[in-house]
Amino acid sequence: MKIITFLSDFGTKNSYVSQMKGVASTITDARLVDITHNILPHNIREGAFTLLTAVNYFPTGTVHVAVVDPGVGTDRKGIIVTTRSQILIGPDNGLLIPSARILGDYTVYEITNTKYVLSSVSDTFHGRDIFTPVAAHITNGVPFGEIGTLTDSYIDLDFGKCEITDKTASGKIIYVDHFGNIITNIDGQMLRRVLDFDKKIMAFIGDKQKEILFVKSYSFVKKGQILATIGSSNYLEIGVNQGDAAKKLKIKPDDEIKILFS
Amino acid sequence: MKIITFLSDFGTKNSYVSQMKGVASTITDARLVDITHNILPHNIREGAFTLLTAVNYFPTGTVHVAVVDPGVGTDRKGIIVTTRSQILIGPDNGLLIPSARILGDYTVYEITNTKYVLSSVSDTFHGRDIFTPVAAHITNGVPFGEIGTLTDSYIDLDFGKCEITDKTASGKIIYVDHFGNIITNIDGQMLRRVLDFDKKIMAFIGDKQKEILFVKSYSFVKKGQILATIGSSNYLEIGVNQGDAAKKLKIKPDDEIKILFS
Amino acid sequence: MKIITFLSDFGTKNSYVSQMKGVASTITDARLVDITHNILPHNIREGAFTLLTAVNYFPTGTVHVAVVDPGVGTDRKGIIVTTRSQILIGPDNGLLIPSARILGDYTVYEITNTKYVLSSVSDTFHGRDIFTPVAAHITNGVPFGEIGTLTDSYIDLDFGKCEITDKTASGKIIYVDHFGNIITNIDGQMLRRVLDFDKKIMAFIGDKQKEILFVKSYSFVKKGQILATIGSSNYLEIGVNQGDAAKKLKIKPDDEIKILFS
Repeated sequence: MKIITFLSDFGTKNSYVSQMKGVASTITDARLVDITHNILPHNIREGAFTLLTAVNYFPTGTVHVAVVDPGVGTDRKGIIVTTRSQILIGPDNGLLIPSARILGDYTVYEITNTKYVLSSVSDTFHGRDIFTPVAAHITNGVPFGEIGTLTDSYIDLDFGKCEITDKTASGKIIYVDHFGNIITNIDGQMLRRVLDFDKKIMAFIGDKQKEILFVKSYSFVKKGQILATIGSSNYLEIGVNQGDAAKKLKIKPDDEIKILFS
Repeated sequence: MKIITFLSDFGTKNSYVSQMKGVASTITDARLVDITHNILPHNIREGAFTLLTAVNYFPTGTVHVAVVDPGVGTDRKGIIVTTRSQILIGPDNGLLIPSARILGDYTVYEITNTKYVLSSVSDTFHGRDIFTPVAAHITNGVPFGEIGTLTDSYIDLDFGKCEITDKTASGKIIYVDHFGNIITNIDGQMLRRVLDFDKKIMAFIGDKQKEILFVKSYSFVKKGQILATIGSSNYLEIGVNQGDAAKKLKIKPDDEIKILFS
Repeated sequence: MKIITFLSDFGTKNSYVSQMKGVASTITDARLVDITHNILPHNIREGAFTLLTAVNYFPTGTVHVAVVDPGVGTDRKGIIVTTRSQILIGPDNGLLIPSARILGDYTVYEITNTKYVLSSVSDTFHGRDIFTPVAAHITNGVPFGEIGTLTDSYIDLDFGKCEITDKTASGKIIYVDHFGNIITNIDGQMLRRVLDFDKKIMAFIGDKQKEILFVKSYSFVKKGQILATIGSSNYLEIGVNQGDAAKKLKIKPDDEIKILFS
């Protein structure tokens, strides 16, 4: 099945997202799936992380259109990133690269052929005028090299280093989800090699310090209690069972986190 | 047409919903329809009521995946509920049963065959790892008995009794909608047998008391005026024409309501 | 491809939108696309403007169902508006007419044949019971004249006059988007004939006065700076690069705006 996904910071109050879907529907019968349109306005890092958590669950051949694009209208490039199994399309500002890295074997094309974009391109909405029509033509089988030009020059982005020893792990907060769960960049699989469930850890987050139980899932502590676990995207996360950990701990994205165990 | 619907408390800011749709798209070409993802976090009753209001409008064969799941990661079962015309899939916590009851002739299967779930099942996201792949395989024709085992033991849930005489009706508030309309568990069809439109009723809600006109629809009172009517899901509801009744009356879900007429 | 779009003020917390999609799916396999369901409750003007910004991006034959309907349950008509290329369905309260005007050559039918609506029509939800089934039958090829009756009597709506001279432009604020960008009813194409980019303009909005740079796009001013530009729907808009102009200027919809240049 042909699939195009959409991720943006457009919100869902205006018609911007539907304009992209109208344009796509004019060119292709691919299935259209929303990832989210509630990325914080202009927050490229949050967009990049959210896209990263989604791509692995989509089938081979899926084309992702991601638009968090404060530089629209300047000379920042529009890019197609091909990977081992899926395709990413959006602005050249780092948004696509973390997803490309985990999908593997990635190659970047600058979008250069105006034949595959809308006949009138605005200076404010390349998601609709460039990225969506390019995605739609790709699902129809137009080759990448026909739409763009290979390039080695593009903007990278990562979520910072996480360091794990046999007694500590450190990294930072990259995301607070809808429930108030605090998601870090500390790799869950690596952490599990040195830390067993049901151990107490000492967590230093921003300027706070807290003893927390590391458990298999949220319901292993009582309602309202704090916990640490490996989330569904395989990162260490701090939560409160049926509560809001970010509010309770007054955490913000980018806060540093260090945990001690032994 | 094959259809899978999704209802959850995941919100729409993160990528969780799209992860389920990616997994579904890998297995089936069924149409994917959102019911809502804005159920109050962990509020099984609100999820059960919202699902109940939707199912009757879907075609025979529709498969509903509902995930309000505070017990994920414990030993609570995952279940398939078959009914006369549609199929419900989700956690065994009561969420699915009110819908099963109105769809009729329902039977519960515990999901037991790991062949039809993702190869790696997380402890925090069974919506993606178990319920969605099971739903997708069912739309592809895999028999229920191949995926699960018949069971008589499951958790029930109802919305409380409503009592209607020829002079009174009593029940409780089960839901406040987006407009601030207050929806009760008092059956509209039964109430209409004893109460005509354009009659005044005396309503006792929580600790408030109010004389209200019972009308055919919102626009039968002036803008800003309070009214009682039968809502689109066939329950008695209290509203304000083009206003917010819940705010005006300071109502909360679970408040008791009694109305007098004669 | 057959497409039905949906626009409403229902929000996304309840199941109302999915009820419409269930009904549509029972009748047609047309693709279902949301425009938005976050129109301010009962705000016909905001609904009409949002629909207007979307329709031009959809393919020929698309059927739009729009439901901002404070008069539901009264004797207001339900209408089908046919245009040169697309079809609009909803209440007769002005909501559809601005879109019909830009799509061109429009004709209004009153929905009169109960054969194409649900067998039980509620007094509170014609979006589900009348407009959606009518839209679905139209995508299946049922002729307009079989469903409705031609009429010359319908409610019109416009966004007010905008006046442009070689030194001034005046109009009003019709919309504030998700980013806080302020969208006016001043036609962008006409304004560009008398005003070049990179010129300073003097803007009078409500009771405020402000010198603003008129630029090609948001990123032509520094982060946090105010600007005027032509938005993606071809109207003059006032924004703040990566900021919230409506909050900064304390603007509300319907405020008058006048700009001077020379």
